Amino acid sequence: MSNLSDNEFLTSLRTVLGDELVLTGDRVPEKAISDASQTGRNLPQVYVRPRSVKDISETLKICNVYRRPVVVQGGMTGLSGGANPQKGDVAISMELIAGVEDIDTAAGTMTVLSGTVLEQAQKEAERAGFLLPIDLGARGSCHIGGNLATNAGGIRVITHGMARDNVLGLEVVLADGTVISSLNHMLKNNTGYDLKQLFIGSEGTLGIITRAVVKLKPLPSVQATALCGLNSYDNVVSLLRHAKRSLSGLSAFEVMWEPFFRFSRQGEGHNFFEVDYSFTVIVEQSGESTDLEAFLESMFEEGLISDALIAQSEMQREAFWKVREGRALRALTDRLSFDISLPIRVLDVYVQEVSATLVTAFPGVHISVFGHVADNNIHLYVSTGNDDPSTKERVTTIVYERVRQHRGSISAEHGIGLLKRDYLSYSRNADELELMRLIKKTLDPNQILNPGKVI
Amino acid sequence: MSNLSDNEFLTSLRTVLGDELVLTGDRVPEKAISDASQTGRNLPQVYVRPRSVKDISETLKICNVYRRPVVVQGGMTGLSGGANPQKGDVAISMELIAGVEDIDTAAGTMTVLSGTVLEQAQKEAERAGFLLPIDLGARGSCHIGGNLATNAGGIRVITHGMARDNVLGLEVVLADGTVISSLNHMLKNNTGYDLKQLFIGSEGTLGIITRAVVKLKPLPSVQATALCGLNSYDNVVSLLRHAKRSLSGLSAFEVMWEPFFRFSRQGEGHNFFEVDYSFTVIVEQSGESTDLEAFLESMFEEGLISDALIAQSEMQREAFWKVREGRALRALTDRLSFDISLPIRVLDVYVQEVSATLVTAFPGVHISVFGHVADNNIHLYVSTGNDDPSTKERVTTIVYERVRQHRGSISAEHGIGLLKRDYLSYSRNADELELMRLIKKTLDPNQILNPGKVI
Repeated sequence: MSNLSDNEFLTSLRTVLGDELVLTGDRVPEKAISDASQTGRNLPQVYVRPRSVKDISETLKICNVYRRPVVVQGGMTGLSGGANPQKGDVAISMELIAGVEDIDTAAGTMTVLSGTVLEQAQKEAERAGFLLPIDLGARGSCHIGGNLATNAGGIRVITHGMARDNVLGLEVVLADGTVISSLNHMLKNNTGYDLKQLFIGSEGTLGIITRAVVKLKPLPSVQATALCGLNSYDNVVSLLRHAKRSLSGLSAFEVMWEPFFRFSRQGEGHNFFEVDYSFTVIVEQSGESTDLEAFLESMFEEGLISDALIAQSEMQREAFWKVREGRALRALTDRLSFDISLPIRVLDVYVQEVSATLVTAFPGVHISVFGHVADNNIHLYVSTGNDDPSTKERVTTIVYERVRQHRGSISAEHGIGLLKRDYLSYSRNADELELMRLIKKTLDPNQILNPGKVI
Repeated sequence: MSNLSDNEFLTSLRTVLGDELVLTGDRVPEKAISDASQTGRNLPQVYVRPRSVKDISETLKICNVYRRPVVVQGGMTGLSGGANPQKGDVAISMELIAGVEDIDTAAGTMTVLSGTVLEQAQKEAERAGFLLPIDLGARGSCHIGGNLATNAGGIRVITHGMARDNVLGLEVVLADGTVISSLNHMLKNNTGYDLKQLFIGSEGTLGIITRAVVKLKPLPSVQATALCGLNSYDNVVSLLRHAKRSLSGLSAFEVMWEPFFRFSRQGEGHNFFEVDYSFTVIVEQSGESTDLEAFLESMFEEGLISDALIAQSEMQREAFWKVREGRALRALTDRLSFDISLPIRVLDVYVQEVSATLVTAFPGVHISVFGHVADNNIHLYVSTGNDDPSTKERVTTIVYERVRQHRGSISAEHGIGLLKRDYLSYSRNADELELMRLIKKTLDPNQILNPGKVI
């Protein structure tokens, strides 16, 4: 890459976007260096801030001609390094491509630009009397475009599915700058291939999502939240089965294994129960009315739950959720976090097996587990007190090897990005990977879109 | 295509499959000639009946080498000609690739071969205590593989989404015979591109679906069904909004416009109400308990419904549904049927506009309309008394032109197949079509998979 072509390339970008939107060197903001995984930490060669979809199209045209690698950056809240720049990357910031363009109250749809912060879109939906079903902890910073590019999960998957399930239409810019407008508003539309599915969850490797039409749902008028103590994993699975059958509007079922709950509640300064149960579960119901208390009483009588608290105020509800968010775990600065999916019946077997192996390999290791058990998904935090690369690799291999044996997924909702790329074959076979590469090559023949990520 | 290569090709197929599974001429069964649209009616050049996925893989390898076009045939219940053979086609019957292989009661999943008749899969799910959420009128004949290849809709979309939304994993044979096993069992699995989405709804043009892992749901213990008379479309939309908010387990909301209801109920010999209302709606609730009667009373008090009957027996429930199935319409042998999607607020405006235009063009025309209004989807039947091709084309253009103006879809749930291919551009733009063609070319470079269909 000669200086001459560098200069030509930068001049082309500046001609199209204007000087103030094409930044290099120490004008590149700190946040562009790494996502929430805080790995990698490379400065992109160029940082551009397009103001429109047309700007993005022009930027990609130039990058494609000059064969410059491109990484798209939203709220930088990812945990897999998918938005981290590699050396030489052009980082495209989506923050100026923001705003809710339309809410159709009759159809229950929202058209939104992809740089919109999720919480802002949620609030605009609420003002119009609707719930935006996509929700996750990073809502105050993450962009809705990033949620779609990674097919984000979160706490509402139990009711509304993954991000993918809430998208009706997309607008995408391809590697050569072509803008594909597939902004369908229909719930049912079987007219040819469902192109949007290719881009959702592809982490910026096939195209840049610029606009979306998402589904809205009725805003629930009542919300009831309980914290329940249980003595066995069998009881957790039975409680879930009963809740799915009997609780209309079950909107969360979050399970905390004992070490996670104890560590986190101590960090928040709460006791909640007189003892710590093997499993503590947040059960939440959202809808027109609630029968959560009667439901929990019947579960108590059946011996499935040992104790339960129903939140009596919004403050108490938030206290339950703060323990589940596990902020105390941040004190373990060397912790590795994992996001895995396994059949529900083996989730706890898996936790026990991995814990035993890790304790043997790393005496004194801290292992915390919580999860969206209804969605087959748990998150593990492992802290050995030692953050050298070889320890990290040994821990990661132990965690993923057992996932492979149980035919699970090494990424339930966080995506592959950079950090899990080398482990992708643990969850997808060689033929699948080959087909992914073929699709990548077809849509991005010059390999400029987020190269080295995912596959 | 010389006789020599014909002979070589047939010999290759017979060597792999055995003589009795490779049929030509008058040994080809009548059902292979056309789907339920009864259009086309070509004899395939060869009709093969593979017994295994390996047989399908070998068949495709040979067809790919000899460049022979292939059409996959399931239950032949499609309405768009997607499974109709073109001259020279090799028709692959899926009927021997049948059976439910596994039901995982803990996870709530079923692994099923794609030639399985839908109703059989539904019954096996029920025996295990589950509901298979995919359901449509043709359940007794259609294959589950065909339901997935066309992304079928039906009456349960309001609760469980389209066929696509109920698939966790797929096994697919590609044009060159490669078997892609993407039999994921996880609800959440963000490991690379979601390849199955490409094949679902692609109508056999990108690969042959051979196995699937589908989601199962709890079997409802109570079902309540009502027939409601309403005086305006505004009332229909209001009733739907209330039902979605207040009726937990709303499992059907089927709207019949007056001419459809009258024609169909007369055919079945029923009156139901003393007058025929502008709109008659079937409201069904499925779950653990029912409050449908109280709900309808409150809707009556609000003036949204003018009359209602709640089914007092399974026989009465079936009587409601038989009217909705509209068997009387079969008497109109020249009828054209359409399956369109439009924003819910314009559905009735559209019906009025199209009816006015059709009545002007064809005095005495019969127009019947019913639909899954909650899913934005209506079906129109038009009978002019004249079935010459130019009349059909004029009617079709009138119906679709208005869909285009309202930015709707010319196929909500029936797919494109052969019959709607030339109208695809009414609902998808040139860039989308170009991207579809690129994907088609990549996955099927010799264009052997259902050529001439969809795009």
